[in-house]
Amino acid sequence: MSFGYIDVKEAYDRIKPYLKDTPLEPSFYLGNGTRKYWFKLESFQPVKSFKVRGALNKMLTLTEEEKAKGVSTISSGNHGSSVSYAASLLGIEKAQIIVPETAPKSKVERIEYFGGTVLQMGANYDEAHALGMKHIEESGMTYIDAYYDDPKIYGGQGTIAIEILQQNPGIDTIVIPVGGGGLSTGIAVAAKHLKPEIRIIGVQTEACPAMIKSYEDNVCYEEYPIGDTICDAVVGGVGALSYAMLRDYCDDLIEVKEASAARAVSFMAKNEKYIVEPSSCLTVGAVMEDPERIGGTNIALVLSGGNIDGDLLTRLMNEY
Amino acid sequence: MSFGYIDVKEAYDRIKPYLKDTPLEPSFYLGNGTRKYWFKLESFQPVKSFKVRGALNKMLTLTEEEKAKGVSTISSGNHGSSVSYAASLLGIEKAQIIVPETAPKSKVERIEYFGGTVLQMGANYDEAHALGMKHIEESGMTYIDAYYDDPKIYGGQGTIAIEILQQNPGIDTIVIPVGGGGLSTGIAVAAKHLKPEIRIIGVQTEACPAMIKSYEDNVCYEEYPIGDTICDAVVGGVGALSYAMLRDYCDDLIEVKEASAARAVSFMAKNEKYIVEPSSCLTVGAVMEDPERIGGTNIALVLSGGNIDGDLLTRLMNEY
Repeated sequence: MSFGYIDVKEAYDRIKPYLKDTPLEPSFYLGNGTRKYWFKLESFQPVKSFKVRGALNKMLTLTEEEKAKGVSTISSGNHGSSVSYAASLLGIEKAQIIVPETAPKSKVERIEYFGGTVLQMGANYDEAHALGMKHIEESGMTYIDAYYDDPKIYGGQGTIAIEILQQNPGIDTIVIPVGGGGLSTGIAVAAKHLKPEIRIIGVQTEACPAMIKSYEDNVCYEEYPIGDTICDAVVGGVGALSYAMLRDYCDDLIEVKEASAARAVSFMAKNEKYIVEPSSCLTVGAVMEDPERIGGTNIALVLSGGNIDGDLLTRLMNEY
Repeated sequence: MSFGYIDVKEAYDRIKPYLKDTPLEPSFYLGNGTRKYWFKLESFQPVKSFKVRGALNKMLTLTEEEKAKGVSTISSGNHGSSVSYAASLLGIEKAQIIVPETAPKSKVERIEYFGGTVLQMGANYDEAHALGMKHIEESGMTYIDAYYDDPKIYGGQGTIAIEILQQNPGIDTIVIPVGGGGLSTGIAVAAKHLKPEIRIIGVQTEACPAMIKSYEDNVCYEEYPIGDTICDAVVGGVGALSYAMLRDYCDDLIEVKEASAARAVSFMAKNEKYIVEPSSCLTVGAVMEDPERIGGTNIALVLSGGNIDGDLLTRLMNEY
């Protein structure tokens, strides 16, 4: 496994005909005379998540034979919807998205909306994963990785960096939520290639700072305990490729409080008028906690998705 | 005063270098097998309102001498912000936005954020208007009309129709909020020119159905009483140009309940994940009330703006 800017550039050329650039919009309310913040709104993707970039890039490299055999993944969240959508876009008829039997109806419907078939198996995510991988292997479908080590997935996510620097070449700092690490590593590698002096800041929730602890302990934590969290899109272990690379491309990794993410969700909705999922709001929360540590004069905050439950959104807007 | 498609086409060519197309996105949750709804998201304009289109078109036709003398308008809302923003964009140094002394601080700050100067005069909107028009006349600035009868303003707003039909030529019905009538008349005239069989539906709040009553009574109500409303962007009287033209270009004018607009605001935030102001949500509310009357198979709902007070948004999300 190796990954570099060329993977991102190839991904960019490949997915461009299918996906519009997402907006890079200035913040009204963050910042001051010397610092200006910009929102990279992946919440405006057709599936409301950046994950469609990697999934689409991967599927565009499949052979006709592979496409005919179909694609599959194990995810009830943004990655599952993204695989479902990308398969529809490319006319891949067989797209099986495996989710636990306990997955909420709304998530199942969301995946089906985009055209994929949902298979429910296993009582929880771990069981679904074990059963699902066996099913995928037996059926001959191509497994679409979420974040572990596929350069095609990392390359797709990294296309965000190319867009940001085209939209505003003056961006000197990019802040990115870190979960498994596919998004952050993809962006970091591409951005540092295009603009070596750019600063890359990764942010993790205090409920699961797996990457921070991996580097502290020099252990690639592929699983990690998860505390109480609203940031469910960035919890769990880290990807092997990300663990191997992110340290060299990331200037700072910051642990952000859950309360800051919650406050940021409310702030974004009430003030900036964007609905952004809590995991994405770790970037905004990090700025609220300590703008000096983030630094920079033109700072892009990557808002990775917009899928937040309506009741949770309402609760956070009442509380903050 | 005359107004036709050529005014819209000229406006389109004029403003295109300055404003990106706003997205036309499919609804996830409205519709069924035979009807598909699309959101035209003017809430994604830089000022979060369509009004920037008309203001910018008007200012792009000013002479250098007129630009040097400056521009002005009377509005604490979306039109005021739009004039402020458009003037900054074009380097017009003198842009005076007149608002009543009672205008809330947040609205004043919003206008100033975009670069314009706020002048506060008069205890209410009527007084501000009387004093403001006198001030504008004496100072030699160009008055930028909000909706009354300037074909340059109507032409700018009408560019939405060109975008919609480029983005999806299959659109057969467009639903538009109607206040003064600049937006609806601009879109209706352009859309019917481009696609004569297209259906145009105007929607008004029950709190101020001025256009509906104007046509019923054959009187151009330039002022009209306003009931309790959350749809403050579409209340007041109708424009003379709109009164003269809209009847011939509009297939139906529908009065929508305030409660439907309120419910639609909550639905759009919690489900579709867009923050849209209540006036815009009259279109969504109309669909919820009576989809048969709206009709169509590919229906564009014009969501004219995204400026809603954070506390009001939270309240509606709690109630609905």
